[in-house]
Amino acid sequence: MNNIWFRELYTDHLGVMFRIKDMKYSNKSPFQEIVVVDTYEFGRALLLDGKTMLTEKDEHIYHEMIVHSPMTINPLIKKVLIIGGGDGGSVRELVKYSTIESIDLVDIDKEVIEVSKKYLQFTAQSLDDPRVHIYNEDGSEFVKKIEKEHYDLAIIDSTDPVGPGAKTPAFTLITEEFLENVAEVLTKSGIFIAQTESPSYEAEYLKSYHKKLRKYFNYIAPMIIMVPSYSGLWSLTFASNVHDFYSLNLDSLKTKESLNVKYFSSEFMKYSILFGKYLPY
Amino acid sequence: MNNIWFRELYTDHLGVMFRIKDMKYSNKSPFQEIVVVDTYEFGRALLLDGKTMLTEKDEHIYHEMIVHSPMTINPLIKKVLIIGGGDGGSVRELVKYSTIESIDLVDIDKEVIEVSKKYLQFTAQSLDDPRVHIYNEDGSEFVKKIEKEHYDLAIIDSTDPVGPGAKTPAFTLITEEFLENVAEVLTKSGIFIAQTESPSYEAEYLKSYHKKLRKYFNYIAPMIIMVPSYSGLWSLTFASNVHDFYSLNLDSLKTKESLNVKYFSSEFMKYSILFGKYLPY
Repeated sequence: MNNIWFRELYTDHLGVMFRIKDMKYSNKSPFQEIVVVDTYEFGRALLLDGKTMLTEKDEHIYHEMIVHSPMTINPLIKKVLIIGGGDGGSVRELVKYSTIESIDLVDIDKEVIEVSKKYLQFTAQSLDDPRVHIYNEDGSEFVKKIEKEHYDLAIIDSTDPVGPGAKTPAFTLITEEFLENVAEVLTKSGIFIAQTESPSYEAEYLKSYHKKLRKYFNYIAPMIIMVPSYSGLWSLTFASNVHDFYSLNLDSLKTKESLNVKYFSSEFMKYSILFGKYLPY
Repeated sequence: MNNIWFRELYTDHLGVMFRIKDMKYSNKSPFQEIVVVDTYEFGRALLLDGKTMLTEKDEHIYHEMIVHSPMTINPLIKKVLIIGGGDGGSVRELVKYSTIESIDLVDIDKEVIEVSKKYLQFTAQSLDDPRVHIYNEDGSEFVKKIEKEHYDLAIIDSTDPVGPGAKTPAFTLITEEFLENVAEVLTKSGIFIAQTESPSYEAEYLKSYHKKLRKYFNYIAPMIIMVPSYSGLWSLTFASNVHDFYSLNLDSLKTKESLNVKYFSSEFMKYSILFGKYLPY
């Protein structure tokens, strides 16, 4: 067995490592370093600027939770905005709903989309769905051009905006200006959901992000999800002006079968939100 | 800053690493290698055979969850057995209950107790409580000598019995014979709780362990806890013949203040058990 390891630091003092079987792609785009590898533990993986974006073995957990959670809370969602998400995983889950009319995917880096189509068909398989419109623009600029109350759902499926040496385009996606603009392009019952880093190693970030979000939304709730390749656990954060995530009225609990998913269930979503009230420190 | 890193492999292909500030103690006892270090991320840490046992920053999460969970489910617990736990963290939480009459701590390695008293006073502070009886014996042999239905609570607070290169004494604590013996020394309403590894990286182990436990107990439930120094998340497993952990009747919800804890609450315990139904794979 080779002894080549990928190493990712979560803080200056702590990191994870996993063994690499093969490198499939490596190139610096105008925005970031894009690497596709095969790993022993997690199958194929996409690394951006040396950070794990997704792995074949557990990306379904992340993508199912970030998509089916808001879709369960409001099944009437028709127009969706995704910021980031060039790998296509969120799109793959969204197109399962025939009720969805359009999906605007705004990923600044065209090369991520091309590489995903070539090497990551397990996530990219639905990027050519006719309802999907791809914009290779800066998400923070894109939302400025959109009319108010246009989207029912905004998914911030971006790279890490924090962490040691983080200099990704995602920096512009955590400013108050961006959050305010996203709040404005959402309908009154619209739902916001974002990937918000590790609750273990980025608890301070999470708290300050929530504080910003509260300026533009009545209800905020972090949700904890278990993603082995993301150091075990990760957080997503909901925001809305009408949905109180701690007292959801879920008439029809969705099963795995009815949703055509591997992991998500609305029962688990409920517990993940309740569990999310308790950050480790 | 120095560039000395502790590295722990969770599987043959995956591990975590954290930066070391100073080494305080290092010695091979007859049973294992005992190391105490100061880290940048987690403060002081105890490593046994190269694996993280506890860290100053987050040991309270683990110890509070493993002790106050069963104590909340059955506040009448009087006699407690701890297998392992030589660092004293579980004892520290147990002695907060004036209703507890005796605690038998069975840790095979006397040196762990001595080292903890010297270097880890934050966990070892209550090991001299008059209700605590320390036995430096193999836990699997110890339980054979105990009369039936002697203990109200058994806490398996041991080193990792699985993982790459694991050859710890804890191997004898996952056999069917041991689990049967522990079941026998528990009272009818007795509660069993054990640390049961990472739900991300040891899911197969967890499943097989639960299968064994079901032979001797009517009710089994894993609970997920967030412990940053244990790769983010960890599992504890409950077992009992009378307590159905999925429909607990918790009359008086305990608050942090009433229990004198930093993290535990019975509400969080409830959600951790419900969350534990969903292993990542």
